[in-house]
Amino acid sequence: MQMLKAYCQQKAALVDEALFRLVPRQAGYLATVYEAMRYSLFAGGKRLRPILLMAAADAVGGRGSHYLHVACGLEMIHTYSLIHDDLPAMDNDDFRRGKPTNHRVFGEGMAILAGDGLLTAAFEVMLSQPGVEPGVLLKVVREIAQAAGPAGMVGGQAVDLAAEGKVLDAAALKYMHQAKTGALFRAALRAGALLAGGSNSQVEALTAYAEQFGLAFQITDDILDVTGSEEKIGKPVGSDIRNAKATYVSLYSLEGARHMAREAVEQAKTALDGFGAEADILRDLVSYLLTRDS
Amino acid sequence: MQMLKAYCQQKAALVDEALFRLVPRQAGYLATVYEAMRYSLFAGGKRLRPILLMAAADAVGGRGSHYLHVACGLEMIHTYSLIHDDLPAMDNDDFRRGKPTNHRVFGEGMAILAGDGLLTAAFEVMLSQPGVEPGVLLKVVREIAQAAGPAGMVGGQAVDLAAEGKVLDAAALKYMHQAKTGALFRAALRAGALLAGGSNSQVEALTAYAEQFGLAFQITDDILDVTGSEEKIGKPVGSDIRNAKATYVSLYSLEGARHMAREAVEQAKTALDGFGAEADILRDLVSYLLTRDS
Repeated sequence: MQMLKAYCQQKAALVDEALFRLVPRQAGYLATVYEAMRYSLFAGGKRLRPILLMAAADAVGGRGSHYLHVACGLEMIHTYSLIHDDLPAMDNDDFRRGKPTNHRVFGEGMAILAGDGLLTAAFEVMLSQPGVEPGVLLKVVREIAQAAGPAGMVGGQAVDLAAEGKVLDAAALKYMHQAKTGALFRAALRAGALLAGGSNSQVEALTAYAEQFGLAFQITDDILDVTGSEEKIGKPVGSDIRNAKATYVSLYSLEGARHMAREAVEQAKTALDGFGAEADILRDLVSYLLTRDS
Repeated sequence: MQMLKAYCQQKAALVDEALFRLVPRQAGYLATVYEAMRYSLFAGGKRLRPILLMAAADAVGGRGSHYLHVACGLEMIHTYSLIHDDLPAMDNDDFRRGKPTNHRVFGEGMAILAGDGLLTAAFEVMLSQPGVEPGVLLKVVREIAQAAGPAGMVGGQAVDLAAEGKVLDAAALKYMHQAKTGALFRAALRAGALLAGGSNSQVEALTAYAEQFGLAFQITDDILDVTGSEEKIGKPVGSDIRNAKATYVSLYSLEGARHMAREAVEQAKTALDGFGAEADILRDLVSYLLTRDS
């Protein structure tokens, strides 16, 4: 895990630097909307989706750090989704990663625009990725749009919103998470493999890994809401119980959820059987989910 | 103008058909978010941006109707911007084109998601445009992202939002409109010319036309708010005066604004001097702005 920590720190630093350059501070008329965008972009995110993209590129023998534009685009899309999710009309959250949410600082209207701005700029940034054959870049960005859109992340959020006050059954819960969180993880891993010229079988293997990774991520997220420390997560724990939300823990008990998470992690690693040491980061990353505290 | 009317009706019908197919009705979990997206997408828009794209492609000797994916993407981006602009945290409008606004029908949270969904799906749709060299398509969609993003449409909206309760001066007003409305017109016309393989000088001429078109559009929009009929516009007139908003009419008087609009229309036509009859639709379109009643 020492290697994993160093890898993540190094890649996150690359992403931070690139984002700083790609979403620059602005003077004049545009100062406020860029300030609002940058507030959430630099609020301490772990850069997990960019790291997954880079680790997938590395796993197929490429250089993950060559694809920073697409990696940063994923982080911008993830950040916009958090800003909009936190809005009063959605989850109505006041804190995120220990800091006031975007609309609490900039107001609701500007927070909506900051999200819109990040989402739109993400596509401009991704489509500016140098060093990739145009046809490949088109395909990758199209997949990311699909994963982030109404049949993916936005759709999952809509299912979540519509479920307010109701309790989702296991099938609906799985669908909602797969769309809301899983689809973008999947797009990140596939993007890394496709950009770096992975073979069809490598892309398929990483897709299978991605699906189990997403599942393990969500189950451990639900577990953290029960067992985690408020200080480390940066937001109140126990909110799922208070909101009577269906979770893997409420449906399968804490022990059942832990078992399911271990199972998903094993299956994710099995999907990597065809890879050598170049996929060790991906193996460590998914194992890490079982021990994470934030 | 007879020719213009027939052209617009024919192209709008093509766009409607394509949108119907590209943003299909959904059953199951995704039914509501797609219904919300389609509600605003099929609420009687004039399809002006897709028509401008197609007319520009026709003007450089191409076939505008070949580029329906990109044309529809523009309309989806325009529609998302209307949904978000109407939200309570923004303009707080109850009616649009004579129908209740999206959030009045589907609630605020779902309206935010419908906008997010349309914006994201717009990129998926545009990046699926067949029959175009990938490098050209990348460049065109990147330009559209830039025009719609925080340095374009979203930025203009942010300037508008920040100006609430203040009165913008002439320079700020021009900047705001250029970003909020002009940038996407410009992207539409350039997209048509670039997709259809227009020469550099043709693209530059259509860019100059676009800038004057955008100016004429905004000035006549401000005039309509004073002289228009509520029934035809589909929303209350006089709202700019009630909200003490700076407009071309408040800054330059009704007569002054009319003069400026005629001037912009003349300059737009002058930009087309190098084109023959294949640009007649563009000439008629900008002239039409002087007589429009909605």
